[in-house]
Amino acid sequence: MEAFSDGVFAVAITLLVLEIKVPGYDTDLATQLLRQWPSYLAFCISFAFIGIMWMNHHRLFTHIKKSDDMMLIFNLALMFSVCIIPFTTALLAAHIGHPGARTAVIVYDASYLLIAVFFNLLWRYAASRNGHLLAADVNRESVEKITQQYNYGPLAYAIAIALAWVSITASLLINLVLAFFFAIPPHYASRTVPARRSNSR
Amino acid sequence: MEAFSDGVFAVAITLLVLEIKVPGYDTDLATQLLRQWPSYLAFCISFAFIGIMWMNHHRLFTHIKKSDDMMLIFNLALMFSVCIIPFTTALLAAHIGHPGARTAVIVYDASYLLIAVFFNLLWRYAASRNGHLLAADVNRESVEKITQQYNYGPLAYAIAIALAWVSITASLLINLVLAFFFAIPPHYASRTVPARRSNSR
Amino acid sequence: MEAFSDGVFAVAITLLVLEIKVPGYDTDLATQLLRQWPSYLAFCISFAFIGIMWMNHHRLFTHIKKSDDMMLIFNLALMFSVCIIPFTTALLAAHIGHPGARTAVIVYDASYLLIAVFFNLLWRYAASRNGHLLAADVNRESVEKITQQYNYGPLAYAIAIALAWVSITASLLINLVLAFFFAIPPHYASRTVPARRSNSR
Amino acid sequence: MEAFSDGVFAVAITLLVLEIKVPGYDTDLATQLLRQWPSYLAFCISFAFIGIMWMNHHRLFTHIKKSDDMMLIFNLALMFSVCIIPFTTALLAAHIGHPGARTAVIVYDASYLLIAVFFNLLWRYAASRNGHLLAADVNRESVEKITQQYNYGPLAYAIAIALAWVSITASLLINLVLAFFFAIPPHYASRTVPARRSNSR
Repeated sequence: MEAFSDGVFAVAITLLVLEIKVPGYDTDLATQLLRQWPSYLAFCISFAFIGIMWMNHHRLFTHIKKSDDMMLIFNLALMFSVCIIPFTTALLAAHIGHPGARTAVIVYDASYLLIAVFFNLLWRYAASRNGHLLAADVNRESVEKITQQYNYGPLAYAIAIALAWVSITASLLINLVLAFFFAIPPHYASRTVPARRSNSR
Repeated sequence: MEAFSDGVFAVAITLLVLEIKVPGYDTDLATQLLRQWPSYLAFCISFAFIGIMWMNHHRLFTHIKKSDDMMLIFNLALMFSVCIIPFTTALLAAHIGHPGARTAVIVYDASYLLIAVFFNLLWRYAASRNGHLLAADVNRESVEKITQQYNYGPLAYAIAIALAWVSITASLLINLVLAFFFAIPPHYASRTVPARRSNSR
Repeated sequence: MEAFSDGVFAVAITLLVLEIKVPGYDTDLATQLLRQWPSYLAFCISFAFIGIMWMNHHRLFTHIKKSDDMMLIFNLALMFSVCIIPFTTALLAAHIGHPGARTAVIVYDASYLLIAVFFNLLWRYAASRNGHLLAADVNRESVEKITQQYNYGPLAYAIAIALAWVSITASLLINLVLAFFFAIPPHYASRTVPARRSNSR
Repeated sequence: MEAFSDGVFAVAITLLVLEIKVPGYDTDLATQLLRQWPSYLAFCISFAFIGIMWMNHHRLFTHIKKSDDMMLIFNLALMFSVCIIPFTTALLAAHIGHPGARTAVIVYDASYLLIAVFFNLLWRYAASRNGHLLAADVNRESVEKITQQYNYGPLAYAIAIALAWVSITASLLINLVLAFFFAIPPHYASRTVPARRSNSR
């Protein structure tokens, strides 16, 4: 399951670059390249986001040690939401600064809301029934902290979507802040303890 | 063999999104996005289908533990049929609601018929000669149930194709129902037994 | 090394489908689809060929158990030749039946000649110095037979290229025959012995 | 982590071929193919470069045996710089021989500078605090030699960028020479010792 998921993450993150177009010969190349800043911005945000999602997926699967058919389906649903990011990124890059910017931002944020919802479903299912898919010796406190952190996701992205009606910039900023929030492991403080740090691969 | 197959599934499922086009600046973006519903529908069906095929492939290879040259060839044939799905999906998305809709649906269903045939060939070969490629301690009943479930595939997709001459909608609905049928593991009832559930990864 | 190589094979084989274009709305869809036969033919030949190359690579690496820097470079050179197949396939599909058909066939055959040369280099390097990169308990006879089979490759593809000046069809046919020749394991006869057949994965 | 990284390298290296366009039917196909030499050159340089980067990554991870969250982030940053190569390659191929050639070469070299910087960061972090992420029995001398070799990277690519204002050809040549420099393992001399050669996979 992880080989397939890693493959999907790797392909999705690499496909993002196909959305950056090579400028033609009309005017000065440097000027044209600079004008494409929305493409670069969208590429960077989406790359960071998919990368962070991959880190989170990786982190969950240090705890999840068993799998069943429902788990495969929840994981597929999560992969579905990851796979649409190249499209919503291209949409954002093409329409920012144009009349359709608000619509593009809403669709973009909505794709992250979907990811947040599916991450919650996958994790809650794995942790349900007394952690029936988790490692037998799982750290209960870590599990609890991940659950708490993930709780914020759906609501926070729903707020980002709502904010898009007020200010597109604010909405995208919230999105960026959330990416960093999910990049931080839920039990950061305890990570400085040497024994914990060496989570060997 | 599974690393290669997982890679093909992962690339094929992620390439599907490339068929969803980013609208231009002609009219209201929201309207244009809504008008693209056939692309989204085709993307969702195809994603679900490739995902379910991956689950089935994964499930078969919990039983198949040996390989030989014929097996590699049957597996390649199956990958061939998976790889054409992005094309038949794009064809369906482009021509639904147009004069070529019937042709597109027939080609689309035919690609699934091909997958069903190749899944049967791969599985029957592995299970042939007293299960010569299966695990030594394989559950004979599970093997029998998978064989029974796969029996329905080719016939059912042939019916879906025939139905396309009567009603395109009915044909696509059959296709969707079949996807869910193959998502369900063949021995669902027995899965509630705790020992079976924990098919550790 | 195999994970990377499997990834390249998986991506290259799946990218082939991007070369098959979805027809527009000009005339009857069925007619347009049938007219695209060169694309399908090229897709099928190239898919079969990359698949068979993957099988050969897989087969070699059941014998090769060690690696060094030169080996990584020979493997990269082989991956290089595999990666250009989607381009030479698209070239063939676009120009068959057009004035540039001969040129396209020559380029297409040349890409296979390159693969044959790099397969020979990789295998001969691994088997050199008394098989310094092969498994300690390698079957010397198998090694010899693979070397013999690979010997034919470069010459045979050179003949296919030369034939293109006489007949394009004959050149492509030779190419097809060679694909099947390399699909057959070099020590086929011995494979019916039960112990050999169960080369467990 | 390596599965994901290998996937990104495999996809990025294979995507390069999509930038080589199939010529139309305007004039003689051979002439048109020859005119595309900048595409082939860019493809070859970029393929060699990504391949060598993969070899370096592979080499580092024979020493790096542990991972933590910072490591995942440094690795993602490195993958980011690898993923933009298909774009900067396409840019170079399109604009060499055109007025924007200098700009294209600078952007191209800059993407390699970025890779060199991120490789240094990843390696220095892993080797920091007395090699806290390296294998316990790591060869200190090898570590030192890799560090020394990597030291040259950022400066050398900065020189390549600066040279672009003087001569585009010289700048690209430096780039090519650097690729070969990083292809050579840092402790080449010691590699002929038999015990070192058999770094089994």
